[in-house]
Amino acid sequence: MEKETTRLEAFSDGVFAIAITLLIIEVHVPEASGASELAHKLAALWPSYLAFALSFVTILIMWMNHHGMLLWLRRADGALYVANGFLLLAITALPFSTALLGGYLGDEGGRVAAVVYSLHLVLINVGYAWVWLVMSGPRRPGLAPDLPDAEVRLTNKYLAGSFLVYCLAAVLALVSVAASVGLTLALAAFWTWNVYRRLRVPAAAAGVAG
Amino acid sequence: MEKETTRLEAFSDGVFAIAITLLIIEVHVPEASGASELAHKLAALWPSYLAFALSFVTILIMWMNHHGMLLWLRRADGALYVANGFLLLAITALPFSTALLGGYLGDEGGRVAAVVYSLHLVLINVGYAWVWLVMSGPRRPGLAPDLPDAEVRLTNKYLAGSFLVYCLAAVLALVSVAASVGLTLALAAFWTWNVYRRLRVPAAAAGVAG
Amino acid sequence: MEKETTRLEAFSDGVFAIAITLLIIEVHVPEASGASELAHKLAALWPSYLAFALSFVTILIMWMNHHGMLLWLRRADGALYVANGFLLLAITALPFSTALLGGYLGDEGGRVAAVVYSLHLVLINVGYAWVWLVMSGPRRPGLAPDLPDAEVRLTNKYLAGSFLVYCLAAVLALVSVAASVGLTLALAAFWTWNVYRRLRVPAAAAGVAG
Amino acid sequence: MEKETTRLEAFSDGVFAIAITLLIIEVHVPEASGASELAHKLAALWPSYLAFALSFVTILIMWMNHHGMLLWLRRADGALYVANGFLLLAITALPFSTALLGGYLGDEGGRVAAVVYSLHLVLINVGYAWVWLVMSGPRRPGLAPDLPDAEVRLTNKYLAGSFLVYCLAAVLALVSVAASVGLTLALAAFWTWNVYRRLRVPAAAAGVAG
Repeated sequence: MEKETTRLEAFSDGVFAIAITLLIIEVHVPEASGASELAHKLAALWPSYLAFALSFVTILIMWMNHHGMLLWLRRADGALYVANGFLLLAITALPFSTALLGGYLGDEGGRVAAVVYSLHLVLINVGYAWVWLVMSGPRRPGLAPDLPDAEVRLTNKYLAGSFLVYCLAAVLALVSVAASVGLTLALAAFWTWNVYRRLRVPAAAAGVAG
Repeated sequence: MEKETTRLEAFSDGVFAIAITLLIIEVHVPEASGASELAHKLAALWPSYLAFALSFVTILIMWMNHHGMLLWLRRADGALYVANGFLLLAITALPFSTALLGGYLGDEGGRVAAVVYSLHLVLINVGYAWVWLVMSGPRRPGLAPDLPDAEVRLTNKYLAGSFLVYCLAAVLALVSVAASVGLTLALAAFWTWNVYRRLRVPAAAAGVAG
Repeated sequence: MEKETTRLEAFSDGVFAIAITLLIIEVHVPEASGASELAHKLAALWPSYLAFALSFVTILIMWMNHHGMLLWLRRADGALYVANGFLLLAITALPFSTALLGGYLGDEGGRVAAVVYSLHLVLINVGYAWVWLVMSGPRRPGLAPDLPDAEVRLTNKYLAGSFLVYCLAAVLALVSVAASVGLTLALAAFWTWNVYRRLRVPAAAAGVAG
Repeated sequence: MEKETTRLEAFSDGVFAIAITLLIIEVHVPEASGASELAHKLAALWPSYLAFALSFVTILIMWMNHHGMLLWLRRADGALYVANGFLLLAITALPFSTALLGGYLGDEGGRVAAVVYSLHLVLINVGYAWVWLVMSGPRRPGLAPDLPDAEVRLTNKYLAGSFLVYCLAAVLALVSVAASVGLTLALAAFWTWNVYRRLRVPAAAAGVAG
């Protein structure tokens, strides 16, 4: 049975790694006839660089949290496969919304692009929560028997918080694209800081386990 | 010898994971000059989203069933490598037929696209059945000695059923594109439900094995 | 030390799996305004399908032989890493030559495309032979101590034969594109048959090892 | 805890393998109407081939050194994940700068492209150094307790040297594009030679360990 979750994790990891590496092929080299025009056009591509970096950080953190979540998983049933499949579908589709945001951020269509991008992050969040609800809900004794209640409460809080922030970003995009993207960036920065802070190895560990 | 099947599985898994993640790069961000035109063009891309989701679900379920099938495999011979290679060829080519279906579904060419897409699924089904016939046929004692007869009969039934449905979808496409795609979607939904239903972990298992 | 070759194999396998799956994205869906025009244009894409299938089979067999070769490897030194890196460079570049062949096969430029494609296969063959010479040459006692002389002679023969055939295909392309591509196809078919034939699991093995 | 670094390595390896294989899809098959025009246009693509090979070698050596570095890692904390994430971001973005260099190397925009490409290599170098500083700095007892001081000093020297060479290449590009690219090529050749030289398996090892 353990073999089952290994497969699930390896396949999911592969999809995350490929999706994160495909993001760049949506950033196209501009056509220019001289050095100064090229420099200018490269600078004008900043929305694409920003969207690339934002999605990269988002997928990387999703991967880390997904893996942290699945460490508790002891068995995988059909409901978990279906939920995880939905999450992977949303993750693999992100390069499209990223290209959309990068292509229209500084443009009139920026509002539409920011709404779609934010809603896409809501969709990923929903997929993520679905996986979590399957393994932490009534099926927990069969799937993740060692998962402590404190971890469930903490993750529930994070997921609900992210859901609200991404929904807010979608609404904000109707008023101000900059505020919407800024909010999403702030959440990515918070998650990065959270990874940085939570995964702390005590220096003393070396003396004990080394 | 066990090392042989590990390699085969890892390589096949990698190809499945890459093919499923490449599907999205065939969905291109539309060019538009204003917010409302962009919104309109994004909505008009629904055939691409539908084709993407349909192929995603199809490949994901293929991967799950492929892996479930190979769990019975103890040794791999040349016939199995050749059959599996044919299956992988058909899987890696699916992004092309998906882009074709997504590009022409709402169009005059939709009939041709739906026929090609359905025939592509027939081809994948044939590759799948080929792998299965190699390991469950006369070579079974050497390749999959623990494979029970009941499993062989059940999988034969599923494969024959899928084959008929995909052939029917190809014929239906000549009459009605919507009916053809609808039938393929219904089969994908059936397979998803089947995964959901068959992979059930009893809650009591935790008490015994945990 | 064994860990070294595991890494090398896993990385190489990954590159093979990605290169084989990327081949299809060079086959572009044609633009057409009606059903019959689309059907006609899809049929006219046959050189792309042929080039795709030819490169797919070539890479798949390369992967199988590469893996079979590395099964003998016990340690990896710098010379082997450099040779293997050259082989991977040639493999990852194949989607370009494949797209070239697919795009110009039925065209006036077909001669040039077939020469380039054949020379590319020569290059892959050279990379392959380089890896083999490193591990079967004077360094053999340190790298592949269990490699028997019979295996060395057989592989040498296969590599020299393939080298000659690919060179002949490059020369033939100047006279007849069809003959050149036909020769390459015949070699791929021979290799497939060879895999089929050599990897035979005796039915009796089940009784002994099962 | 060891499981953590396995995940980190596998994910990083996957990203390296995908990024290195994606480089080729930025080299586009030229459009030509006759055999001689096609041959001419293929020859004119030499900057793309050069940029492809340069980035391929750079990523391959980065992968080897990254893996060699992580062999010392016993535990991974948040700081290491964040630093490694930054390195992977820089690696995955390299296909863009590679396409830029390949597209403009023989052109007026070559100066701009070479500056951007060199600065991109500086960025990768910084990400690399960041990972190294995290594991070899004050956190060393907790993360890489067995890492010897001599290794730290040697790697520091290599990283500082590469940093200076890539910065010099960026400055040189303003004066001479050929000199800038030539310097980067020379460093890649040096690294290749270094891999070749350092990873030497003594022939006698076979007698002892075989």
